[in-house]
Amino acid sequence: MKALRLEAWKSPAVLREVERPDPGPGEVLVQVGGAGACHSDLHLMHEFSEGQLPWSPPFTLGHENAGWVHTLGPGVSGLDPGQPVAVVGAWGCGTCARCRADLETYCDHPERTSAPGGGGGLGLDGGMAEFLLVPDARHLVALPDGLDPVRAAPLTDAALTPYHAVRRSWGKLTPGSTAVVIGAGGLGHLGVQVLRATTAARIIAVDPRDTARALAERGGADLVLAPGDDVVDQVREATGGLGADVVLDFVGADDTLRAGAAMCRQMADLTIVGLGGGALPVSFFGVPYEVSVQSTYWGNRRELVEVLQLAARGLVDAEVRVFGLDEAVTAYELLEVGAIDGRAVVSPSTEYRP
Amino acid sequence: MKALRLEAWKSPAVLREVERPDPGPGEVLVQVGGAGACHSDLHLMHEFSEGQLPWSPPFTLGHENAGWVHTLGPGVSGLDPGQPVAVVGAWGCGTCARCRADLETYCDHPERTSAPGGGGGLGLDGGMAEFLLVPDARHLVALPDGLDPVRAAPLTDAALTPYHAVRRSWGKLTPGSTAVVIGAGGLGHLGVQVLRATTAARIIAVDPRDTARALAERGGADLVLAPGDDVVDQVREATGGLGADVVLDFVGADDTLRAGAAMCRQMADLTIVGLGGGALPVSFFGVPYEVSVQSTYWGNRRELVEVLQLAARGLVDAEVRVFGLDEAVTAYELLEVGAIDGRAVVSPSTEYRP
Amino acid sequence: MKALRLEAWKSPAVLREVERPDPGPGEVLVQVGGAGACHSDLHLMHEFSEGQLPWSPPFTLGHENAGWVHTLGPGVSGLDPGQPVAVVGAWGCGTCARCRADLETYCDHPERTSAPGGGGGLGLDGGMAEFLLVPDARHLVALPDGLDPVRAAPLTDAALTPYHAVRRSWGKLTPGSTAVVIGAGGLGHLGVQVLRATTAARIIAVDPRDTARALAERGGADLVLAPGDDVVDQVREATGGLGADVVLDFVGADDTLRAGAAMCRQMADLTIVGLGGGALPVSFFGVPYEVSVQSTYWGNRRELVEVLQLAARGLVDAEVRVFGLDEAVTAYELLEVGAIDGRAVVSPSTEYRP
Amino acid sequence: MKALRLEAWKSPAVLREVERPDPGPGEVLVQVGGAGACHSDLHLMHEFSEGQLPWSPPFTLGHENAGWVHTLGPGVSGLDPGQPVAVVGAWGCGTCARCRADLETYCDHPERTSAPGGGGGLGLDGGMAEFLLVPDARHLVALPDGLDPVRAAPLTDAALTPYHAVRRSWGKLTPGSTAVVIGAGGLGHLGVQVLRATTAARIIAVDPRDTARALAERGGADLVLAPGDDVVDQVREATGGLGADVVLDFVGADDTLRAGAAMCRQMADLTIVGLGGGALPVSFFGVPYEVSVQSTYWGNRRELVEVLQLAARGLVDAEVRVFGLDEAVTAYELLEVGAIDGRAVVSPSTEYRP
Repeated sequence: MKALRLEAWKSPAVLREVERPDPGPGEVLVQVGGAGACHSDLHLMHEFSEGQLPWSPPFTLGHENAGWVHTLGPGVSGLDPGQPVAVVGAWGCGTCARCRADLETYCDHPERTSAPGGGGGLGLDGGMAEFLLVPDARHLVALPDGLDPVRAAPLTDAALTPYHAVRRSWGKLTPGSTAVVIGAGGLGHLGVQVLRATTAARIIAVDPRDTARALAERGGADLVLAPGDDVVDQVREATGGLGADVVLDFVGADDTLRAGAAMCRQMADLTIVGLGGGALPVSFFGVPYEVSVQSTYWGNRRELVEVLQLAARGLVDAEVRVFGLDEAVTAYELLEVGAIDGRAVVSPSTEYRP
Repeated sequence: MKALRLEAWKSPAVLREVERPDPGPGEVLVQVGGAGACHSDLHLMHEFSEGQLPWSPPFTLGHENAGWVHTLGPGVSGLDPGQPVAVVGAWGCGTCARCRADLETYCDHPERTSAPGGGGGLGLDGGMAEFLLVPDARHLVALPDGLDPVRAAPLTDAALTPYHAVRRSWGKLTPGSTAVVIGAGGLGHLGVQVLRATTAARIIAVDPRDTARALAERGGADLVLAPGDDVVDQVREATGGLGADVVLDFVGADDTLRAGAAMCRQMADLTIVGLGGGALPVSFFGVPYEVSVQSTYWGNRRELVEVLQLAARGLVDAEVRVFGLDEAVTAYELLEVGAIDGRAVVSPSTEYRP
Repeated sequence: MKALRLEAWKSPAVLREVERPDPGPGEVLVQVGGAGACHSDLHLMHEFSEGQLPWSPPFTLGHENAGWVHTLGPGVSGLDPGQPVAVVGAWGCGTCARCRADLETYCDHPERTSAPGGGGGLGLDGGMAEFLLVPDARHLVALPDGLDPVRAAPLTDAALTPYHAVRRSWGKLTPGSTAVVIGAGGLGHLGVQVLRATTAARIIAVDPRDTARALAERGGADLVLAPGDDVVDQVREATGGLGADVVLDFVGADDTLRAGAAMCRQMADLTIVGLGGGALPVSFFGVPYEVSVQSTYWGNRRELVEVLQLAARGLVDAEVRVFGLDEAVTAYELLEVGAIDGRAVVSPSTEYRP
Repeated sequence: MKALRLEAWKSPAVLREVERPDPGPGEVLVQVGGAGACHSDLHLMHEFSEGQLPWSPPFTLGHENAGWVHTLGPGVSGLDPGQPVAVVGAWGCGTCARCRADLETYCDHPERTSAPGGGGGLGLDGGMAEFLLVPDARHLVALPDGLDPVRAAPLTDAALTPYHAVRRSWGKLTPGSTAVVIGAGGLGHLGVQVLRATTAARIIAVDPRDTARALAERGGADLVLAPGDDVVDQVREATGGLGADVVLDFVGADDTLRAGAAMCRQMADLTIVGLGGGALPVSFFGVPYEVSVQSTYWGNRRELVEVLQLAARGLVDAEVRVFGLDEAVTAYELLEVGAIDGRAVVSPSTEYRP
C-alpha cells in the first residue's frame, strides 16, 4: 500500500510503497478515510534531530485519523468491519492509573509503550496511508450518524485539543464570565465554537489576521480584536475592568502569554495550548492572585466522543480542504506557505472496500 | 488606649497611646485577646517605602486577631458583647461578585475600600492594641467552644492561609495521592496538619531545619526530607517515580519553585504561598503537562469557620508563645532573629471587661 | 398608594389604598415596574388556611419583582435612585452559613426572619403595588443594559427556578447527554431555554398541550413528546436504550414522577420542581441505581445575576403579557382559567418618577 | 478442586469437587487466598427463586475475593504469577461509556455480559474455591505492601461499598459538617472508618447493639446513639438544630429511611446502601428542600485502589475471622445466627503455590 513516510529527521515526507500491516491479537486494521495534515508534522520534517524525541524515523505521518474498521485482530470483539470510526490519537500504556482514568495523554508509564509519548504518526506508523494499524480497539470511537471520516479526522486533534482545554475550565465559564481565545487559527477557531456550544460565556477572540477574526465571529465570538499595545486594555474595558475568567493561548509565544496573564481576572485560568515556545514567569506578585497557569496536551477518548456528538449536531465544524493520498506532499507544501484555509485532510479512500 | 504603631515606612514599630475608636453604623469594637505577630509585619517595618503599597503609615499593626465583641455600632445585631470572636482579616468592598461569593481576598473592587488590598493591620488600624475597630459584623466569626482568643488569633492567617491553599486542591488529594509541603515553618507546619485532618493523602515535608522537620512529623507528615540536590529524586522515588499530586511552596524562592515543578506529576497543582520573591518560568515543555501553577492569598470567612472547627476539635493547633502588649516590640525583635518557635501572639487582654 | 392585597385566606385578592412604606436603616424602597402573576399566588388565594404557613394575611401579593431604586434607607450605599433593579425574592436571615453562601432559599434560621420561609408577596408585602419595601440592599441586582423591569420581573422566579434546577445538574449535562423537561409551561419552557443556552445536552420536552410543545421547540428542544403510555419507551428509544441523564419535573404529580424515574439512566438526577403534590417512593431496587431524587426551591442572588445576563443577551426570554395595576385582578382571573400564554406581568409604573 | 456451590435456589451451599478452570484469552486464574462471606449470599441461598435474577444456579459462591495471580491466559501481560491481588467484583461489558469511565457497577449494557448485573459469585463462579477464573485482567488490583489476601478480601465489598457512598458525598463533608451512619455493622463500621480517614466531618453512628456502637466509637465516631423515638431530635440537637449534611443508611428499612430523611439538613445527601427493602416517599414538601435521595451499589476499580491504600496505611481495617474452605458451610451458619463479629473470611490457601 502507499504511505507518506518521514524517512529521516530534517527531511520532507515522501510517498512510498510499504507493506500493508496485519493486525495481531487485540489490534485493528483501519482503512483510512481521512488523515489531517497538522502544523506539528512540519515540525517533525524540519526541526527535530535524533535524540530530541524518544522515537525516530522512519514512520508514516498522520496523527488525526478516521476511517472504517477493516480487519479485526484475534480476540477483538464489539466492532464490525465497515463501521466508520475516529481514532483516539494518544496511545498510553493502557493500564496505569491515568490511562484507566481515560487520560492516556498523561500516561504515567509512557516507557511501557512502543512509542513513548507518541503514537500513530508520531513514531509509529500513522494514517497518511491506505491502512492504519491501531494497537487496541479502545482507541476507536464509532462515528455518530451524519459524520464521515473526512470531516471527522481533523476533529481528533484540531477540535479535541481545544475541547480538552475548554472542558477543564467549564467551572469558571458561567454565564456572565468572559473567555479570551488568543489565536483563532486551526485550533483556535474550533475553540471558539466549543466555547459557544458548551457554555454561555462571552467570547473574545484575538488574532492579527482579518480572515481569522472573521472566522471567529462566524464561530460565535462576541468581540474580535487585533493584537496590539492596547489589547489588554480593550479586554479589561470589555469586562468592566475585571479581566477575563479564562484565557486560552493557542499561540504560546512570550508576548501572547504576557498579554494573556495581564488580561486575567484574579482566579482565572491561563492555558497554554500553542507550541509557540514562549514562557511566562509566574510569581506571587507577577500574575493576578490565584490565576492558574498550565499547558494542556491533546485530549482523550471520552472527550472525543463528546466532540463527535457536537459535530454530528452541527455545533462544531472544521473547515476542510480535501486532498488525495497522491497529493499529500502538495498538501503539506501548501500548509507550509499558509495557503490552506481551515484544515487540509488527506483522504486515501472515499468509501469502505471490504 | 495603647497600640503598637507603624509611624513611618522603614521604621520599627513603637508603642503609643491612641484614642480608643468609637464604632459607627455597622461597625463593631472588639476587645483584643490575641494578635499574632507575623513575618510580613517585619516586611512592613523594613522593606516598603511610600508608593509601593496603596496605603501608608501611620497605623496600628496586627492582622491576625481574635478577642471579644465589646461595643456594637448602630444597626448591628446578632452579636453579644462579651462573645469571643475571631476576625476575618481580608476586608473587601462587600458588594462585588467576589465578595458576595465569600472571596474578599480577591475583591473585584478594592478601590472602593478604605485600605485597598489591605485591612486591619495593613493600612488600617490592626489588633496590636487594646481595641480593634472592625468595619462590618460580617468579618467576625464566633469562636467555637474550647477555643480562646490567644489560640484563635494565629489561626486567622497562619492556619487560614494554608487551609485555603489545601482546600482548593482537595480534588487531587485522594487516597493514594501525595502532597509535598516545602517549608514547614509557621504556615507550613499548619499546612501539614490541615492536610492530615482533611485528606488521606501521603504527606512529604521538606525543610532544612531539624526542628521544623520534627514539627512536621508531629503534625502528621509521613516522610520528611532536607532540601538538597537529590530532593526531587527522593520525592520521585517515594512516589514510585510518578511525582507529587500537589506541591505547596511555603517558601516561594526561585530554587524551591524550580524543585517543586520538577517533583510534580502531570496534572499536579504547584501553589505558591510563600513570599520568597521567586518566579517560575512556565512553558509548554518546561513544566510537566497540565501542572497548574498559581499563587494563593490568605483565606476567607467560610474557610475560617472551618479552620476554627478543626482547631476546636484539636485537629489543627498552632504552637503559641504569648506576650503582653507592653512586650510587643520584644516579640517582633525575637521573631526577627528567629528566636520564636511557632507563633508569637500579643495578648492585650486575657479576659473580657465590659 | 394602591396595592393588590390578600386580606384573608381563601379569598380573592383586592385592590386597596395602603400607606406607602418608608425605608428604615438598611432598607430600600423600590418603585415597581413589573410584578409577575404566579400560579402559586392562586394557591394562596384558594387553598391555604390559618396555621398551614408560618405567616398570615393581610399582605400585598407579588413575589416576582423588578423596578427602580427609589429611596434609600439610612446607611445604604452603592445604589442610585432611578437605577433599574430586579429583586431577589428569597429573604433569609442573612447571617447563617447558608445565607452567607448565597443560599437564602435554604436559610438555616428562617425563624429569625419576619416572614419565616416567605418574603415579599409571601407573608410580607410584595410588588403588586406602586412601591415595594426591600429589607436589605443585598436583595437587589442591577439590570444589565437592554433589560427593562417588565421583562425582568418574571425572570426572578419563572426563569430563576429552572435555572437553579439546571445549574446544579450541569456536571451530568455533558455533550451527548439527554435532559428531559416534563411540563413545558411557564417555568418549563424557560427550563428548555436555560438548558439550550448553558449546555450542549440533547433536550426532550414532554407536555400534553400542542402550544406548549411548540413553545419548547422554539426554545430549543430537540424532541417533543406528548405524555402517554409509551413516553418512557420513547425516551429510552431516543437515548439508545440508556435513558435520560437529567429529568426535570415541572409538574410534580404522582404519574409524572413515576414516569420520570422510569426514564432515568443510572446515576441520573430526577428533580422535582413542580408543586403537583405527588410523591415518588424511592428504594434500592425501585429506582435505577444512584439516581438522585430531590426537590429544588427557587434560586438565589448569584443565579439571578446569571439569568439576567442570559436574558440581556437574548438567550432566555419569557413570553410576557402586560397589565396595569388596575387590571391586576383581571390578570389573575385570566391566569386561573388558563387564558394567559407565557407570563402575566402587572406593571404599576412604566418609568421611574423621582 | 473444591468449591462451595449454590446448586439450586432456596438451598444451602454445599462443598463439591469441580474442575479447575483454564484461563482463555485475556483471562486470569487467581489462586484464592481469601473470600468473604457476605449476608447477601444468605439471600441467594434462601430468598430468590428462578426468574427473579437474570442468572441461575449452579455456581460457586464468593464475591469478595483476593489471592495470587496464578496462570495468565493468552494475551495477558502486566501481571506476574505469585503477585497478590484483590478482585474488583462488578464485571460490566467493559466497553460502554460507564465501563470506560470506571463505573462497571452501572454498566449501560449488562446484557452483553455473561452474568448480567452479576459477576463472580453472583451467577458466575466466585471465590469460595481453590481457584477463581477472572474474565479480564482489568478486574485485578495489585495489593500494596503490608496487605495480605485474607485482610484484603472483605475490603472488596464491605469497605468498597461504603467507600463509594462516602466518596460521592465528599463535597458536602467539609469541616464542621455532620455525617450520620445508620447501622454500624459489617459495612457501617467501615463507613465510619472511611469517613474518619478521608474527611473532617463529625460522625454520628446509630445502632441498637452495644457492640456495634462500641465498634463505631473505636472506628472514629464522635457520637453514638441507639435508635428510638428521639433519635431524630438527638441528631438535631447535636447539630445545633440544623440536621445532618449526609446520612448513610446501611439498613435501608422503612423506619430508618424515614428517620434518616427527618434528620437531614436542607441540601443533604440521604444514601440508601442497605438492602432492608424499605422505601421513602420523596415529595416537594415531604423531605427537606433539595435533599438528594439515592441508592448506591458497590464500587469500582479506582475506588478499590484507594481503599487498599487506606488499609495498607492502617486507616481502614475490617475485623476478620478466618475459616478454611472445609469450614465454609460452618462460616455461613455462624453468620446466619449472628455469631460472627466483623467479617467471616474463607481462606482456601494461605500462600501462593506455583
